[in-house]
Amino acid sequence: MPDPREAEPASSPPGASSGRDRLFSPPDGAVGTLGALSLRFLPSELTAQVAVGGAVLEAAAGLGLSIEAPCGGRKLCGKCRVAFLEGAPPPTAVERELVSAEDLAGGVRLACRSRPRAGATVRLLPPPRVDWWKLGATDTGVTRPDPAVRVIKCHLPTATLKHPTALTTLLRTELGEFDLPLAVLRSLGGRWSSGKGGCALHAVVVGDTVAEVRPAPGPGEQSAPVCGVALDIGTTTIVGYLLELTGGRQLAAASAMNPQASFGSDLISRLHAVLDDPTNLQRLREAVVGAAGRIIQRACREAGCAPEQVYEVTVAANTCMHHLLLGLDASALATSPFAPVVAAGLDLPAADVGLPVHPRANVHLLPNVAGFVGADTIAGILASGIAHADGWRLLLDVGTNAEIVLGCRDRLLACSAAAGPAFEGGNVSCGTVARDGAVSRVRWEDGRLRAETVGGSPAVGVCGSGLLDAVRVLLELGVVLPSGRLLAPERWPEPVRPGLRWSEDPSGVVLARGDRPVVLTQGDVRQLQLAKGAVRAACELLLRTAGVAPAELEEVLLAGAFGNYLDPGSVLALGLVPPVAPHRLRSIGNAAGTGAKLALLERSAREEAARLGQAVEYLELSLHPGFQDAFMEAMAFGD
Amino acid sequence: MPDPREAEPASSPPGASSGRDRLFSPPDGAVGTLGALSLRFLPSELTAQVAVGGAVLEAAAGLGLSIEAPCGGRKLCGKCRVAFLEGAPPPTAVERELVSAEDLAGGVRLACRSRPRAGATVRLLPPPRVDWWKLGATDTGVTRPDPAVRVIKCHLPTATLKHPTALTTLLRTELGEFDLPLAVLRSLGGRWSSGKGGCALHAVVVGDTVAEVRPAPGPGEQSAPVCGVALDIGTTTIVGYLLELTGGRQLAAASAMNPQASFGSDLISRLHAVLDDPTNLQRLREAVVGAAGRIIQRACREAGCAPEQVYEVTVAANTCMHHLLLGLDASALATSPFAPVVAAGLDLPAADVGLPVHPRANVHLLPNVAGFVGADTIAGILASGIAHADGWRLLLDVGTNAEIVLGCRDRLLACSAAAGPAFEGGNVSCGTVARDGAVSRVRWEDGRLRAETVGGSPAVGVCGSGLLDAVRVLLELGVVLPSGRLLAPERWPEPVRPGLRWSEDPSGVVLARGDRPVVLTQGDVRQLQLAKGAVRAACELLLRTAGVAPAELEEVLLAGAFGNYLDPGSVLALGLVPPVAPHRLRSIGNAAGTGAKLALLERSAREEAARLGQAVEYLELSLHPGFQDAFMEAMAFGD
Repeated sequence: MPDPREAEPASSPPGASSGRDRLFSPPDGAVGTLGALSLRFLPSELTAQVAVGGAVLEAAAGLGLSIEAPCGGRKLCGKCRVAFLEGAPPPTAVERELVSAEDLAGGVRLACRSRPRAGATVRLLPPPRVDWWKLGATDTGVTRPDPAVRVIKCHLPTATLKHPTALTTLLRTELGEFDLPLAVLRSLGGRWSSGKGGCALHAVVVGDTVAEVRPAPGPGEQSAPVCGVALDIGTTTIVGYLLELTGGRQLAAASAMNPQASFGSDLISRLHAVLDDPTNLQRLREAVVGAAGRIIQRACREAGCAPEQVYEVTVAANTCMHHLLLGLDASALATSPFAPVVAAGLDLPAADVGLPVHPRANVHLLPNVAGFVGADTIAGILASGIAHADGWRLLLDVGTNAEIVLGCRDRLLACSAAAGPAFEGGNVSCGTVARDGAVSRVRWEDGRLRAETVGGSPAVGVCGSGLLDAVRVLLELGVVLPSGRLLAPERWPEPVRPGLRWSEDPSGVVLARGDRPVVLTQGDVRQLQLAKGAVRAACELLLRTAGVAPAELEEVLLAGAFGNYLDPGSVLALGLVPPVAPHRLRSIGNAAGTGAKLALLERSAREEAARLGQAVEYLELSLHPGFQDAFMEAMAFGD
Repeated sequence: MPDPREAEPASSPPGASSGRDRLFSPPDGAVGTLGALSLRFLPSELTAQVAVGGAVLEAAAGLGLSIEAPCGGRKLCGKCRVAFLEGAPPPTAVERELVSAEDLAGGVRLACRSRPRAGATVRLLPPPRVDWWKLGATDTGVTRPDPAVRVIKCHLPTATLKHPTALTTLLRTELGEFDLPLAVLRSLGGRWSSGKGGCALHAVVVGDTVAEVRPAPGPGEQSAPVCGVALDIGTTTIVGYLLELTGGRQLAAASAMNPQASFGSDLISRLHAVLDDPTNLQRLREAVVGAAGRIIQRACREAGCAPEQVYEVTVAANTCMHHLLLGLDASALATSPFAPVVAAGLDLPAADVGLPVHPRANVHLLPNVAGFVGADTIAGILASGIAHADGWRLLLDVGTNAEIVLGCRDRLLACSAAAGPAFEGGNVSCGTVARDGAVSRVRWEDGRLRAETVGGSPAVGVCGSGLLDAVRVLLELGVVLPSGRLLAPERWPEPVRPGLRWSEDPSGVVLARGDRPVVLTQGDVRQLQLAKGAVRAACELLLRTAGVAPAELEEVLLAGAFGNYLDPGSVLALGLVPPVAPHRLRSIGNAAGTGAKLALLERSAREEAARLGQAVEYLELSLHPGFQDAFMEAMAFGD
């Protein structure tokens, strides 16, 4: 005869137990009185004695049986599934939320929640597997997300004179031990639980905190979708992706230039602005926070949802942007030893950060590795999937600073190489960013040099990919030597002379003609050499440190906008990366943005990011005795 | 030969381990690599294998040895002491803070912190015992507090190019896993850890959160004392006690009338103000928050300290004041079933509550039991010590509502009795509060009625204690009958007639003469009877529910200002409380205030309050079938 106190409290009517039992019971409603039940586990056939009111998870742990509970039994993740073969207790509100109706009907419950009845038998189940780390995928592919933001539907019993239980005590029995901020406590209707038949509520939970509690929508009413934003904050560009968190669908995306550019286009000049005048920190912060806020508002407008429906924002940024976004003292990043203020991942109130979203939304910043290997690199590793693969892969995100990761399942090494601005058109005589009219492709066709521009517009300059192509073509034509020497026309090989033109001022090879000629000079080739040398040397030192030969690389992955535009043939021909077969070189798009989305949709991705933040080995190139040699060697073109 | 990685990381110079080890180590610096050490425990003589970097606490738990760690190994309480007989590791910053220098020299360490060296032997020590629950003490008596607010002094090693460890990572290695709010992160000097020799810091920790980090004061400079405020928020009066948290010394106290009185002097009229117009909730909140803030500022001014030095505020209040202070929807308290919004103890940011203290201070509100048995009662139970005693005791806090607790170590029952305003001079023809000129004592002396007034001033009215005395004297003279009937002069016993005077308008016995006579009427006696009947009936029902006879009561404790003024002889003669020997009736002063101070000074008191909030059985008198009978019976005067 089962003791009535063994029933799950959420489902027992108030007053079913005596006042005394109720009053002495622990907060989540488990009855902490005497007595024990036996509980049999399959497939092990082991039997545990469980205290009445004890959970399956603890009983299993007592027997040494391992149930995966990534949240540590905190009733958050819904992964610690067991199937009751007999004696399944009624499901709790959290279980109704996290387990499908079909599974519930089949006896599936959460080990951290379920208080078994006497003589029950449970079978341990493997956690559902989500393969979000598809190798080098350019989008998340997540359709059944497991986000940190959840809507829990619950039904509170009625408080009575005999059991005048506090509203929040009833709520906690249903929800578990989440934080209830004062603003949420203030929003609770004192008499919600005094009506006949109790009351139905929806709670929006963000991580460990209840962000909102409201009466369930009436029949015919719809509840607003619950959304999140993934931010990729780059030195040049800020991109925001608005995602709906139930199905993982992207509702909108918006981007803008980083307005900090008025303090300088590169990181270093912005850091120096802070060093020169510490009050600039606040200005830089306001610039990026304002831009991010406007991006969020624009994306929400486009998707027709209110910014208050955004309950979480994830951020991938380089360490400097990360610090400036938060208003942390970034001055240390400007001088040796370039130690960040914060490396570990952070969860902060969006209101403190200053983003115009739900007032109790969370901002999750992915961890930084070092001063110049930031959360954007961690996000890139997440998106690339390299930490889940057997073979070694090289992941490059190339800009003024190149962040380079060499890794596989067992080890990850990262470094930052100061490539200089050449890849972004900087310090190049006719250089430009990849804007309309930028020469982005250069080919040798029918005995002539042919240039393609962005948008097919008249040529206004040359961007990184065009520069790379141009030097590659000239190298193949024998006009640029592997040493980087640009030959004067009289030394050009005879057959190419008709197809090339020389400009005298500036002196160099004419790539295209717009209003004025776009010319490649000897200085431009040297700039590219410096950039290429730094990136290639960094790759070589990573390989050398890990004891990996280029031939062992499964793939070389190019992340970021730059990677999208590059001609793989040019990358390999110039030797920007170690020599691999062309099919092993692949562009994976905005990996930092994809990583930020993954962190928004999958708590396991966020946990992995935390592990990566610890596990990635940072290689400081300036300390490496072989760096200068490797750099000198890598400056020559060719693989 | 001990492995250098076994050394406590806090004391090993940066760079002592290889980059790889460091990077793979867990956040608090423990080295999670292979290998195990043996560790011997005394007095059990058991030996555990500890993973290198594992803590003593886990090793002991693995052997089934119990080390008391009230904070659950979270490095907060400093109670899990062990003594190393050999191989004591260098003390960590937290240990230097929580363990005396003498004990440290003797090898005492914290089991949750210490990472033992190979072959160490440790002896388990009992936790230090603090008897703050001295039975019915009128002050805390705490001289070595164990508060939730602590200053941790730490020394960060220098970050280097080889180990560019983030400042907060270094800080967490020293402090443990406390929350670091964004405002604290912003206050950190990025380059603090890049100077030669590292840097010395002081961290003020409040509960689980770091409220402040600042460079340690230079030689000759003093650090400001760390303070807290205990608030006792009553319906009529608010009192604040400013305490210094290192030695538990009270620096100042301040009090003020509760300005909510403009909405009515009693709870019910304030609740009805909210029911009538929900916007009054905000007004009531602002009134009490403003008054509490001014009290804190006044106490700080008096003690010469800045309100920013107040890092924590504890609050004892009745449930209604608790809800109005926080701005919670108190309307449910006005109607059956009188369920509170929140019963459990709360920790909230002082900034959210609106108190003018340190911006990251914590407000701890003691738990409520029910709508009319609040945190002030829990505080009173703490201060009274009745939950630690063998024998049964009755604890009364008498006002318009009387909160009454019957308890001992094994069981606690509480109820609230609606005494009405008579004890506070309300509904009494010449009634007044205990202000200057209030008749507070009435005696029969030399054949005449003699009245004493507060301050010896001319009589202006009669307060609760005077009313009680007057009726007692008249009862003994045969002028008031046990039934409550006030006899007209012609029926007075002959001998007393010369010493008493009768007034015709209002008609009654003249107690004193000021500008006009202070008269006791038949109606006044009836008011006292109603109040007395309610309190006594409540006592009787508590005793009956627990199966305790009055003769079994060790003591009857009177808390609150009212208890201080009462003549115990009158209390017993009228039968306000069950009959006990006079020496068993005792006044314990402002028990709610003392309880709030205990919660400020002793974390164990706060933990006990949480347990009490669960364990106290609430008796709803209106539901009790015997209440009407008991009330009718208790209205007669005499024991």
